[in-house]
Amino acid sequence: MKTGFFKVKTREEVWGEFERFNPLETEEVSLGQALNRVLAEPIIAKEDLPSFTRSIVDGYAVRAQDTFGASESLPSFLEIVGEVGMGETVSFELGGGKAVRIPTGGMLPAGADSVVMVEYTEELDQKSVAISRSVAPLENLIRPGDDFKAGQEVVQAGKRIRPQEIGLLAGLGQEKIIARARPRVAIISTGDEIVPIDKEPRPGELRDINSHSLAAMVESCGGLPLQLGLAPDRFSALQEKCQQALDLADICLISGGSSVGSRDLTLDVLASFEDSKVLVHGVAISPGKPTLLVKTGEKGFWGLPGHVASAMVVFQVLVRPFISYLRGEQLTLGEGRPIRAGLKRNVASRQGREDFIRVKIEEKDDELIAEPIFGESALISTLVRADGLVRIDRHTEGLYAGEMVQVIPI
Amino acid sequence: MKTGFFKVKTREEVWGEFERFNPLETEEVSLGQALNRVLAEPIIAKEDLPSFTRSIVDGYAVRAQDTFGASESLPSFLEIVGEVGMGETVSFELGGGKAVRIPTGGMLPAGADSVVMVEYTEELDQKSVAISRSVAPLENLIRPGDDFKAGQEVVQAGKRIRPQEIGLLAGLGQEKIIARARPRVAIISTGDEIVPIDKEPRPGELRDINSHSLAAMVESCGGLPLQLGLAPDRFSALQEKCQQALDLADICLISGGSSVGSRDLTLDVLASFEDSKVLVHGVAISPGKPTLLVKTGEKGFWGLPGHVASAMVVFQVLVRPFISYLRGEQLTLGEGRPIRAGLKRNVASRQGREDFIRVKIEEKDDELIAEPIFGESALISTLVRADGLVRIDRHTEGLYAGEMVQVIPI
Repeated sequence: MKTGFFKVKTREEVWGEFERFNPLETEEVSLGQALNRVLAEPIIAKEDLPSFTRSIVDGYAVRAQDTFGASESLPSFLEIVGEVGMGETVSFELGGGKAVRIPTGGMLPAGADSVVMVEYTEELDQKSVAISRSVAPLENLIRPGDDFKAGQEVVQAGKRIRPQEIGLLAGLGQEKIIARARPRVAIISTGDEIVPIDKEPRPGELRDINSHSLAAMVESCGGLPLQLGLAPDRFSALQEKCQQALDLADICLISGGSSVGSRDLTLDVLASFEDSKVLVHGVAISPGKPTLLVKTGEKGFWGLPGHVASAMVVFQVLVRPFISYLRGEQLTLGEGRPIRAGLKRNVASRQGREDFIRVKIEEKDDELIAEPIFGESALISTLVRADGLVRIDRHTEGLYAGEMVQVIPI
Repeated sequence: MKTGFFKVKTREEVWGEFERFNPLETEEVSLGQALNRVLAEPIIAKEDLPSFTRSIVDGYAVRAQDTFGASESLPSFLEIVGEVGMGETVSFELGGGKAVRIPTGGMLPAGADSVVMVEYTEELDQKSVAISRSVAPLENLIRPGDDFKAGQEVVQAGKRIRPQEIGLLAGLGQEKIIARARPRVAIISTGDEIVPIDKEPRPGELRDINSHSLAAMVESCGGLPLQLGLAPDRFSALQEKCQQALDLADICLISGGSSVGSRDLTLDVLASFEDSKVLVHGVAISPGKPTLLVKTGEKGFWGLPGHVASAMVVFQVLVRPFISYLRGEQLTLGEGRPIRAGLKRNVASRQGREDFIRVKIEEKDDELIAEPIFGESALISTLVRADGLVRIDRHTEGLYAGEMVQVIPI
């Protein structure tokens, strides 16, 4: 692999590089495991839902025309010819001038075209009922296919399964979906100053934050984190970890190496693998400029900044969309829709660089206010205090207090 | 238990009833399992984070005063007295007129109070460096406790753990949290017309949607669903299922029974248990009026409407907050913040009833538009097409097209 000379890429250009990768394999997933999985194939209704005409109230199934003109002072009188039981297959046909008792969810007999709510009826005896309000045809019932019709595409490929889609699949009797595999994401922390969290750090040493915060981010976006632990800043040690990642995972996140020497080491190690290609070497975002993306075979290796808040921001705006891409989803900057809020104070930015400002959201007189959190990106507290990120476009020099901004929840 | 005469309660009154229950037990949870768990005890920093003064750039640790007045045309010349290694405990003190090479993350020697970035320096030989820009004291470093100070409450009880809190805990070396237990939620579907999803329904029968959509909702809000399956509309069958729920779960959801007879059966069965008290019998919301909440010992039994969309709305606005209450969280109408959007068309409502309208969100010219989805609450498609719910206050008669509304994501 030649590393050569690299131009810093914009975030959009980095997203564009994703197309060099193939989306993950598809697999069959049972309904009980399908929540939050991404559909690789659309859901097609194999039958009408519902499959028969049902009452949606307790009352009497009738022919609507037999009730026309009915009122409290001049009711229509109909003959009761029976009762529909819950779950019962009704095979008789309702004639003119007749009515049958029907519960909510009961099947309408042929001939009936509407249901009168029990509130507007009075049984005079076992055989006759007075109807005091007219109904229109199709009133108080749902018909076959009102939910979905056989053959209809009911959920598109690329959609993430929510509880309502689970309900839909249950209703259609589809116990399996075809989804993209969950990406396996190996996580490596580098840096001679980093110690495992169960070790007491000496002065000059720090506990490994990134392995844990990144694993949690992977989990929260549907990936399967594999913590491979620490690699000291030595070629052979890092190469061994990266080989493990190649064997076990689809994606590998290598964090650390904020110092120049360490960064070069990560690049050298990745360059040592066959079939490696550096796609991204520097991104025009802040924080997160020294980000790497290397394609090794079909695997994506990300070099993330060592600073804890930078690593999380890069995950949010680059790695999370990469995972979405591999799962066949649409790419977005965050989960869910951004939150509109007024900016509390001016924030300066540099042209040519897309900034992601950490903000805290406050509510004041029913208005949402986004307050920028200042502080070094080496501080995890800046993200613990934050509710989201505000993006500053690379063509602007900053944002003014009072401006409405979109907050990406984090 | 006496069921007696009941007054329909408002949603706020139902939320108020939650206080009759005790929050769930607390338990120790390891860091790897802590994502999305709710803290039962605050996180207190047991030490300063970071624990020593660190450089946040590659450069030279100096005494700031030795650089005052330095410029490109008139640099300060300092003597290089060594180099700080990554992770190294630095024990010497830096004297005046001296500098040491330091990498990002390196520990500052005593005596040094700032770091000059390598970009503004030039090594003249191994022993001396020219500094072409002055630094202020504390520039380019972070000090002990800049993240959090020993003894400080860093995350409050009742907060849900996000990836950044996982990172914080790792940084503090805290491998466990004390969290509220995840609620075990038993789910029972009733109704003689309902069949398991692997069975082909005859005309008049329907597959069991609610067991599956409710289980997914339980999962999505941090509960542990236990699907107990179907109970036909017979006292002994439902009683047996409810006894199972009492034995196994903290909460039980019984859906179905939209017809009057079925609703009464659920109430009769719950009344048959010792130490039962009906807290809620009817709620002034739509959809969802025929909702029941019965306290049996410390367990909460919810009777939910059978209509699929009604059951999900009631889960969203009543059961989800109940789960939040038991977990020790603040009660809200939805996960995350509501989304502001303009309403696409007029929606009528009835005074005295709080309505939850299903809406689809569209983006048009950078504005979000909430389009009401009309359709019976027996149709799952109304929720599959929906992105959220819009609440209509019980004191208003509806909302006008163009009004800004808050959409609860669903």
